[in-house]
Amino acid sequence: MSFNTTLLDFSVAPEIITNPVASATLHQQVEEVVGAVVPGLTRLIEDLLPSGGFHMTYTAENETFVTFRGHRSGLVSVQIENYGETFLMENRAVVELEKRIRAKIGAHRGKAILPLKRGRDIDSYFYTSDERLLEYGVLETIFDEVTPYQHVQVVRTRDFGKILVLDGFHNMSEKDFIYTETLMGGENYEGKTALILGGGDGGLLCELLKQNPKFVTMVEIDEVVIRECRKHLRAICGDCLDKFDGDNYKIIVGDAFQYLKDSVQEGRTFDYIFYDLSDVPVSPRHDRDLWNMVKDVLQDSMSLLPAGGKYMSHVMGVNCPEALEEFERLVDELPAKTSRTSSSAYVPSFMETWVFYQVTKC
Amino acid sequence: MSFNTTLLDFSVAPEIITNPVASATLHQQVEEVVGAVVPGLTRLIEDLLPSGGFHMTYTAENETFVTFRGHRSGLVSVQIENYGETFLMENRAVVELEKRIRAKIGAHRGKAILPLKRGRDIDSYFYTSDERLLEYGVLETIFDEVTPYQHVQVVRTRDFGKILVLDGFHNMSEKDFIYTETLMGGENYEGKTALILGGGDGGLLCELLKQNPKFVTMVEIDEVVIRECRKHLRAICGDCLDKFDGDNYKIIVGDAFQYLKDSVQEGRTFDYIFYDLSDVPVSPRHDRDLWNMVKDVLQDSMSLLPAGGKYMSHVMGVNCPEALEEFERLVDELPAKTSRTSSSAYVPSFMETWVFYQVTKC
Repeated sequence: MSFNTTLLDFSVAPEIITNPVASATLHQQVEEVVGAVVPGLTRLIEDLLPSGGFHMTYTAENETFVTFRGHRSGLVSVQIENYGETFLMENRAVVELEKRIRAKIGAHRGKAILPLKRGRDIDSYFYTSDERLLEYGVLETIFDEVTPYQHVQVVRTRDFGKILVLDGFHNMSEKDFIYTETLMGGENYEGKTALILGGGDGGLLCELLKQNPKFVTMVEIDEVVIRECRKHLRAICGDCLDKFDGDNYKIIVGDAFQYLKDSVQEGRTFDYIFYDLSDVPVSPRHDRDLWNMVKDVLQDSMSLLPAGGKYMSHVMGVNCPEALEEFERLVDELPAKTSRTSSSAYVPSFMETWVFYQVTKC
Repeated sequence: MSFNTTLLDFSVAPEIITNPVASATLHQQVEEVVGAVVPGLTRLIEDLLPSGGFHMTYTAENETFVTFRGHRSGLVSVQIENYGETFLMENRAVVELEKRIRAKIGAHRGKAILPLKRGRDIDSYFYTSDERLLEYGVLETIFDEVTPYQHVQVVRTRDFGKILVLDGFHNMSEKDFIYTETLMGGENYEGKTALILGGGDGGLLCELLKQNPKFVTMVEIDEVVIRECRKHLRAICGDCLDKFDGDNYKIIVGDAFQYLKDSVQEGRTFDYIFYDLSDVPVSPRHDRDLWNMVKDVLQDSMSLLPAGGKYMSHVMGVNCPEALEEFERLVDELPAKTSRTSSSAYVPSFMETWVFYQVTKC
């Protein structure tokens, strides 16, 4: 059992909303057009808004609800919700309804958001870094569990193969090798030591190990992510997550921030440190705590790198220029002397061009 | 003036909805959690659903509406709408609210669809071929007009540069050269004749002319598309749309289907015919008329091609396998003897892998 929410928006002259006669005509017009496609439309409530607009709710057959509001600014919204696996209207009929209402009420603008599919076993709505909504062509939910750290999902799509989704944000798909490749920045890792902060999907660890590094340490907090990627995303992680200790690598299930602090205390060093944790915050205005965390990680990392050592970080999509600027500012204000470069790549399953930074300790 | 619609969905045991005591507790729990973040929540209506569920509408300060429904199946939905340019809640607060409601009512599943931005000057919600919703990072609406044929928009984004949008479906962006390249199928067009059905963005015409063809005829019905692409999408069309007649090309503003019929009557031939019109229908079940149109175009085209001539067509995204199969079936059932190949490419602004066919007349 699921339901569908269809949203329609129109712009009319504000006088149509505030004039009682024009407003009554508008009601009638919308009722007429919507009533022609929604059987058994019955007005349930009609209410005036304090600002001078109106709000109406209708019920209809088969647990269908129609809400219709007019706002003093001239905005008119129509929302149709119907329950059940089947849509009340085909998408083409929704587009047609938008056109008919627009013509009938003389709106100078109209927009239909086709039925949002809610309450289904398959969740297809995920977000970009800048919190834009994307509906993926999800064929199957392979794994879905709320861990103590996050909501972990693995879904299968036609476009991107299997995708790891964390807290509603697509994290990595089988088609995103370009992500790992760009994060690695074309360096030669042979004989080098590296620390991966996060990286639970195993993609970076897998690619680094192909280059015969001296030693790679990976610190990922959520063992469920490791377990499910090992099971379902072997196209990304290969057999790297099969055991937590190898000749030249070690996977630690733990807090990457604490590991950094401990490393500073214990005087460890790494040639490369990778930030492969959750995204940095979307903007500098919000999430001061998160930005302070990024700053701490940068500072701690710098003290673990030798001169010439590098901090490699994915940062954010190009749609968050403020976040990119804030990251650059943090780097430029580091007490250690550094130089920075950046690179970008369109990551298919992110559906966005993503920006990566390389910070060299001078 | 605009407004935001936030959608939250939960799954609980069906008994909680149908049992009056449990249901009353559920109301109270949701009211309590939502009331903590939505100031001045006042119950406007409470109604029972014929199936045994309930429907409630609340108003709150600043023209905020909260709708809360429970359905016998155990589905619980919460919708929050607030008017004004600013959000009632930051996205992070919405995610937090989802978690709090989920915990409070003991839901075994929860989902938040972050605020949909409605009624704004900038339209950012467009669709994939299979009618999935994508929110683009639109910076600016450059052109927006309803022509006698379609709704034409040109918008500017960070990821894809400028995008031509037709009837809400992204059509072509400045970053989609791969589309035109794959449609052209690696053929050598030097000294050849070609007919483009549609192609109003000018991309295909521009690329063909670079190969010194004998003659290219393009038939596009919507002069507004040509005019706006000439103005805004020169990265795609170059100067090809600046005049409608050249030494070795001609742009006809007219109906491509009629032009095909006339060509059959008048005995014209072309070495290549390109289908660069709107997408084929999403599935074979619907839009029988549209499929018949595709069939007619295929048949007419075959009679205009010499032996060895080719019909080149974009068809559909990989997320519409039924449409791809239907297209193959139509080709295989053509009266003319043909052979077919296909190719595919991930088209950045489509955010989808797209499939193209090449049909050779034997």
